[in-house]
Amino acid sequence: MDKMTYTIGIDVGGTNVVAGLFDGDGVLLAKLKTPTEKSSGTEGFLDQLAGLARKLLSERGIAEGSLAAVGIGLPGFMNEKDGTVTAANLPLSGTPVAQLLSRKLGVPVAVQNDVRMIVYGETIRGAGAGYRHVLGLTLGTGMSAAFVTDGRIHTGAEGLAGEIGHVIMDGVQYTCGCGMTGCLETIASATGIARQAQDGLAAGRGGLLAERFPYPSSRGELTARDVWQAAVDGDDFALSIYRYTAEKLALALAPAVILLSPDVVIVGGGVAAAGDILFGPLREEVSRRVHPLYRERLRIVPGSLDDDAGLIGSAAYAQSLQSR
Amino acid sequence: MDKMTYTIGIDVGGTNVVAGLFDGDGVLLAKLKTPTEKSSGTEGFLDQLAGLARKLLSERGIAEGSLAAVGIGLPGFMNEKDGTVTAANLPLSGTPVAQLLSRKLGVPVAVQNDVRMIVYGETIRGAGAGYRHVLGLTLGTGMSAAFVTDGRIHTGAEGLAGEIGHVIMDGVQYTCGCGMTGCLETIASATGIARQAQDGLAAGRGGLLAERFPYPSSRGELTARDVWQAAVDGDDFALSIYRYTAEKLALALAPAVILLSPDVVIVGGGVAAAGDILFGPLREEVSRRVHPLYRERLRIVPGSLDDDAGLIGSAAYAQSLQSR
Repeated sequence: MDKMTYTIGIDVGGTNVVAGLFDGDGVLLAKLKTPTEKSSGTEGFLDQLAGLARKLLSERGIAEGSLAAVGIGLPGFMNEKDGTVTAANLPLSGTPVAQLLSRKLGVPVAVQNDVRMIVYGETIRGAGAGYRHVLGLTLGTGMSAAFVTDGRIHTGAEGLAGEIGHVIMDGVQYTCGCGMTGCLETIASATGIARQAQDGLAAGRGGLLAERFPYPSSRGELTARDVWQAAVDGDDFALSIYRYTAEKLALALAPAVILLSPDVVIVGGGVAAAGDILFGPLREEVSRRVHPLYRERLRIVPGSLDDDAGLIGSAAYAQSLQSR
Repeated sequence: MDKMTYTIGIDVGGTNVVAGLFDGDGVLLAKLKTPTEKSSGTEGFLDQLAGLARKLLSERGIAEGSLAAVGIGLPGFMNEKDGTVTAANLPLSGTPVAQLLSRKLGVPVAVQNDVRMIVYGETIRGAGAGYRHVLGLTLGTGMSAAFVTDGRIHTGAEGLAGEIGHVIMDGVQYTCGCGMTGCLETIASATGIARQAQDGLAAGRGGLLAERFPYPSSRGELTARDVWQAAVDGDDFALSIYRYTAEKLALALAPAVILLSPDVVIVGGGVAAAGDILFGPLREEVSRRVHPLYRERLRIVPGSLDDDAGLIGSAAYAQSLQSR
C-alpha cells in the first residue's frame, strides 16, 4: 500500500465510538472518541461515523482522496449473505452498513463483529503477531471469541462462528440474556464474576468482599474489579470465583485447543486485566485437560493492544481486503 | 484438469492398504487392496505403495506419464515443518514419505493424516458436498477429527489440529493408550463402547449382553457391534452406553460447533454404523447445549462414502494441490 494513503478504523460500542487514523504502515496517527449517536436513527448513526472519518482527515489536512478504506467493528450480527448488520444496542436492523457508508465516503468500507476486529488486531499487530493460528476470547460484559487462521477471520456458516459464551455448561444455573440457562457467559464475563460474588455474599460468604460491601443494598454496585482486588489481597472466596470461572472456561477451551491447535490463545476484555489471578488457574485447567503435545506449547496470554485492538484490527482488516 | 490424466488415492491402515485409480472427473475406476507391508522396513513399505500405483495403471493399460498426482492418507503424525511422517504402526519414523515416493513415481505426492483425508473426501464428494465448513469426526478404534473450511484442511500449529480424542473429560476414569487418564477416546470409540460394556458386565449389569456373553472368559470378544445389536434389541444397559458416549462427545462437540459454526458435522468410523442409536442421543445432547441459532441449523450426519472416503479424499486432495 502506498505510504501516502490512509486507513481509518472505527470501534463502535454501545456507549462510545472511537475512530483512528492510520498511515500506510499501520501507524496510528490520531484518535477521536465520542458518545455513540443512538437517538437519531440509522441515518444519524451513519452520519456520525462518516463525520468522524472526515474530521480525522481534515484535522490533519489530509485530502479525502487519500483515504483508501474504512474498517468498522461493532457489536452486532453480520448477515454474510446480504451484507446487512443487526445490532440490539445500535439503530441497526438489517442495515447494509458497509454499502451505505461506502456511498457516503466514496471508499470501500469493511464491517465486522467487534470481537473479530479485536482478535484480528491482536493477530496482526498485538499478542498474536507472527502466529498463523490465533484463537481470541474477550471476557467483558459478555463473552465472545474469534479464530483467525492464515490472516483470515473464520466467520463460519451463516457468519455465526464465535459465540462460545452461549454454550451451556453443566452445573451453571444462571439465566442468560439470550434466554437460555447455564450459558458459559453467565460465569465467564465481568458480569458473571460480579454475579458470583453477589450470590455468594447473599448466601452468607464472609471475607474481604463481605467486609467491603457490608450492606446488601450496596452489593449491586460490586464489580468484577472488586472481586479481583479482593483476590489480589488474598481473599479465599474471591480467589475461588476466579478458579471456578477458569474451570468452566477450560471445559469449553480445551476441546477447541485440541481441535484447532492454535499457536496462541489471546484473552482480552475487562476480565483479562485480572492478570495472573485469572491466567494462572486458566492455564492450569486447560493444561491438565489436554494431551502433553498441546500442553507443552500452550500459550494463553492477555492481549497487548488494550483498548486500541478494535481500532487497529478494523483498519488492518479493511486494508487487507484492499490488498487482496 | 485434463480428462486424460489420472490421480491415485491410497488409504493406508495398520492392516491393509487400499489404492484407487481416479479419472480427471474424480470417478473411481479401479481399486486394489492388500495387506500392509510392515516387515521389510521403510523402503519395502514405500515400494509397496509405488507398486500398487503402477499396478493400477498397468492393469488399465494407462501410461505412467498420464498419472498427475498421488495422495496418501495414513495413520500418522505429519511434521509440517520438514514434511516428514512418523507412524507408530507403520515403518515410518521421521520419513519424508511424499518426497521419497514422488522420486519413485515421478509425480507429485501429497501425504496427510488418514482422518483428514476421510473428512476431505466427505467434504468434496460425500455428506459434506456443497458445504463450506465441515467438521468431521471418526469414531473407530480411536477417535479423531478434522476441520475443512473453504476447501482447506485446517492442520493448525505444528500440524497438531484434530486430536480431540485426547481431551480429558470429567468423570472418565479409563487410562488411554496415550498415557493420560480420562481421554474422550476411551469412551467415544469402538474400543470405548466395548470397554464400557465389559466393565458393566463385570460389575454385574444384567440384560441382553449378560445373556449373550454369560461367561466372563468370553467377554473380551465383545465388540461395539454387540453393544449396538443389544441396543437395537431394546436393551437398557446397551442403550445407556450409547447415551453416555453421546453425552461425553457432546461436551467436546458443543463448544466446537458454536466456535466454528460448521455447516455440517460428519461422523464416520465404525461406531457411526450404529445409526440412530448413536445419532439420536448425540444430536439431542449437542442441541440442548447450544444457542437456538445453532440448534436450528445443526446437522450431525453419518458419512456417505463408507470405506472409500479415505481413497476419494486422498486422490481429491492431491488433485486440489495440483490445480492451485
